[in-house]
Amino acid sequence: MEFTEKTIDSQIIFDGRVVKLYKDKIELPTGKESFREVVKHSGGVVILALKGEKILLVKQFRYPLKEVLFELPAGKLEEGENPFEAAKRELEEETGYCANKWTDLGYVYTSPGYSDEKLYLYKAEDLEFTHCHPDEGEIIQAFEYKYDDVLKMIDNGEINDAKTLCVLLRAKIKG
Amino acid sequence: MEFTEKTIDSQIIFDGRVVKLYKDKIELPTGKESFREVVKHSGGVVILALKGEKILLVKQFRYPLKEVLFELPAGKLEEGENPFEAAKRELEEETGYCANKWTDLGYVYTSPGYSDEKLYLYKAEDLEFTHCHPDEGEIIQAFEYKYDDVLKMIDNGEINDAKTLCVLLRAKIKG
Repeated sequence: MEFTEKTIDSQIIFDGRVVKLYKDKIELPTGKESFREVVKHSGGVVILALKGEKILLVKQFRYPLKEVLFELPAGKLEEGENPFEAAKRELEEETGYCANKWTDLGYVYTSPGYSDEKLYLYKAEDLEFTHCHPDEGEIIQAFEYKYDDVLKMIDNGEINDAKTLCVLLRAKIKG
Repeated sequence: MEFTEKTIDSQIIFDGRVVKLYKDKIELPTGKESFREVVKHSGGVVILALKGEKILLVKQFRYPLKEVLFELPAGKLEEGENPFEAAKRELEEETGYCANKWTDLGYVYTSPGYSDEKLYLYKAEDLEFTHCHPDEGEIIQAFEYKYDDVLKMIDNGEINDAKTLCVLLRAKIKG
């Protein structure tokens, strides 16, 4: 079956600090023309950091939702940054911990219908505390929860952050 | 700890068919001013449809990624549409199935850093085939995979769609 949608024209609408927005004119496999709105994002990293039986979570105000969310430590890739380097940087910035053991858990696409955002997932173990130094303008509080309590928080709807659920499922499947 | 970021000014950049884009001037809890880029989206639904031991998956070209992805059936809420009604509609449109048993699996936020997109998650069981009628311009192929094979596809990176992983984890935890 032919799925491919071909780009006829691409118009940049907005070139921001976090997102770029494009409106593309496309040709559907049927030959018809249509439009696609596309958000471009630099991508990011998410870290399941295990401190013995406990998981590090962060609490952060998320402006688009006007809500404080519980999430795993995570962050955007900087220009040209390698995902693994970004994961080490973000874990330390948000929680103050470095990890001596890292496991690659693949990647996910957060919103493939309208965004190219790709998140690289990691497990970090054998943690050592250094110091916390969040980005300017980022107010983040770090917590430690037992693994089973995190699963309960996912079950009862206290944790609703998609990337957090993705990492936990990949880690669970990989055992 | 004070987390809240207050809106000082909100400027609409783009008002599209799928997304709206805003650039807001905000006041950080520290009193400093900053900007936030915010994508607004109508939200959507994702359905874990179980046909006995099998899960219904769909394969679809995702223009922002220029890639064909395996995903659970899903779709956008229409203007003013109730999520449960949308779930029934999307499951039938994408797979041709209606379900007699539905379970609410809560919701997730796909990209809380820059988007307000909220996805409502459901489990659908006791399926009956009616007929397929995808949206115009949507080319979708439906498949059935054994539950264990879907977990393998998540493990080996054949399935990288975030919402698909989220629903499977919530369903797994709820038992």
